[in-house]
Amino acid sequence: MAGRRIGRLKGTRMLAPALNADEIAKLLHEVFPQAFYDGCGLILESVEYARIRVRRRFHEDYLRPGGTISGPTMMELADFAMYVAVFSAVGAQPLAVTTNLSINFLRKPAQADLIADAKLMKVGKRLAVGEVTLYSDGSEEPVAHVTATYSIPGKAN
Amino acid sequence: MAGRRIGRLKGTRMLAPALNADEIAKLLHEVFPQAFYDGCGLILESVEYARIRVRRRFHEDYLRPGGTISGPTMMELADFAMYVAVFSAVGAQPLAVTTNLSINFLRKPAQADLIADAKLMKVGKRLAVGEVTLYSDGSEEPVAHVTATYSIPGKAN
Amino acid sequence: MAGRRIGRLKGTRMLAPALNADEIAKLLHEVFPQAFYDGCGLILESVEYARIRVRRRFHEDYLRPGGTISGPTMMELADFAMYVAVFSAVGAQPLAVTTNLSINFLRKPAQADLIADAKLMKVGKRLAVGEVTLYSDGSEEPVAHVTATYSIPGKAN
Amino acid sequence: MAGRRIGRLKGTRMLAPALNADEIAKLLHEVFPQAFYDGCGLILESVEYARIRVRRRFHEDYLRPGGTISGPTMMELADFAMYVAVFSAVGAQPLAVTTNLSINFLRKPAQADLIADAKLMKVGKRLAVGEVTLYSDGSEEPVAHVTATYSIPGKAN
Repeated sequence: MAGRRIGRLKGTRMLAPALNADEIAKLLHEVFPQAFYDGCGLILESVEYARIRVRRRFHEDYLRPGGTISGPTMMELADFAMYVAVFSAVGAQPLAVTTNLSINFLRKPAQADLIADAKLMKVGKRLAVGEVTLYSDGSEEPVAHVTATYSIPGKAN
Repeated sequence: MAGRRIGRLKGTRMLAPALNADEIAKLLHEVFPQAFYDGCGLILESVEYARIRVRRRFHEDYLRPGGTISGPTMMELADFAMYVAVFSAVGAQPLAVTTNLSINFLRKPAQADLIADAKLMKVGKRLAVGEVTLYSDGSEEPVAHVTATYSIPGKAN
Repeated sequence: MAGRRIGRLKGTRMLAPALNADEIAKLLHEVFPQAFYDGCGLILESVEYARIRVRRRFHEDYLRPGGTISGPTMMELADFAMYVAVFSAVGAQPLAVTTNLSINFLRKPAQADLIADAKLMKVGKRLAVGEVTLYSDGSEEPVAHVTATYSIPGKAN
Repeated sequence: MAGRRIGRLKGTRMLAPALNADEIAKLLHEVFPQAFYDGCGLILESVEYARIRVRRRFHEDYLRPGGTISGPTMMELADFAMYVAVFSAVGAQPLAVTTNLSINFLRKPAQADLIADAKLMKVGKRLAVGEVTLYSDGSEEPVAHVTATYSIPGKAN
């Protein structure tokens, strides 16, 4: 377990994130410049152990027929949020890959920033499983819900 | 049912597609210019009733750490292929939206074109359900498998 | 919306359940005696609007190789919990049917009662979407997580 | 790879099943008597390498409101079929466990036997991924479609 223990709460271990937001942003700039670059519109708003929040700035390129944000825009954001959540729990594992992702689209998103709230439900030796809830900025009702599994190659060696 | 019946095979109806490849390409240019434009790299290779094939030209922007094509590139292609498959079965329904999509990533894709083979398993009044198998061009082993459900608003009225 | 409004909290409507636990138990006895009968081991522990908790008493028939509770036992409980959650939100709709269910198995369950905590994320005119978290009694770490969609036929008429 | 190579077809290896139907039935009787016993109604109709077919005899206990076979009955059959398919590819691995299962219900099943046609899409060192199509006996249109992932503990050691 890469996280640093910082306390105890209700019988569970409170862990500090394995990497903080600045460390993760620096890592992403280095290893994934296609997705994470200055002006890409992705902002790491909050990084705790196994729980992170990412904002995706609105851009009209994301629109699809009906004036709503496209499904792939939401899937990409959720997948990215899971990737960051994995780093928050197990540290720098850029070769972690999604093995399964399932999304339910719940409501038509507004033409506004998207917020992704990702939480890992399991951090195993080889697999991490989590859920991501997506919101339109300023709304409390989710626009989509995702569950995903990441395979962590470094942990298996 | 928008498809035009053209014969019978093994007790099931053989239907012509509701829209052919040229008609679908024209529709996409009009209603979804963000995704489908000259040079976008998406090619409708085959359109039958409820069964279509799309090629996504390789571009190095799709790469992620490890030198493999990113998950969101594959999810976007699968979602697009389902959208086209819905048109092939029920005609021009640009406001059809994905309600659920589940993807399993099976193998590391090559740095090559991606082929999406989409097939609808159900064409209902309100929902269409299908599966999409993704291949690297020239390989017979799938790199990913998707199931997805589309909601068809025009059919519900 | 079948729920009865009982207050307001943080800008969202607080609704009473459309049916309470006793009303739902009575309904299930009538319409689904194969699943819900005296001694079946299913207990409706809590019913709020769109949020319910069900207990499944442990029985050694649920075990599979490895001494763990079988996957189908957990899938059946989650599907049942969603069914009850739909009743809590839209009332007596026994012909509501699952259209999609996706489960991630997270940890080996104990040889103990299973607790299902179900929450609807969307209650639409035709579809309800929710998530169910399963626990072994006495443990805080989930053994499985489910998302599911129900089609509500009565609501479409 | 436990399968025994028996030929080549279209550039892919043709493999004999690691265990045949009789060997799998014998194994199931020993390790999973709760699910597989004389009179249980499950019949292994066909076992090839990574591709199997199972029949579930109809029983009125499987009915749910609306006179249709319940979702959990179909999920249990699909999960069982995947378990057998894993044995057909990697041999006796009774501790293989489902990590993820996703089902789409497509049509109302008849009050008839259910047929499960399972095919593995990937047989990896640690994970097997497959799809299962369910039919009502005598019908060509599927009643449900499942994708599932099994974790193979013996293979990881």
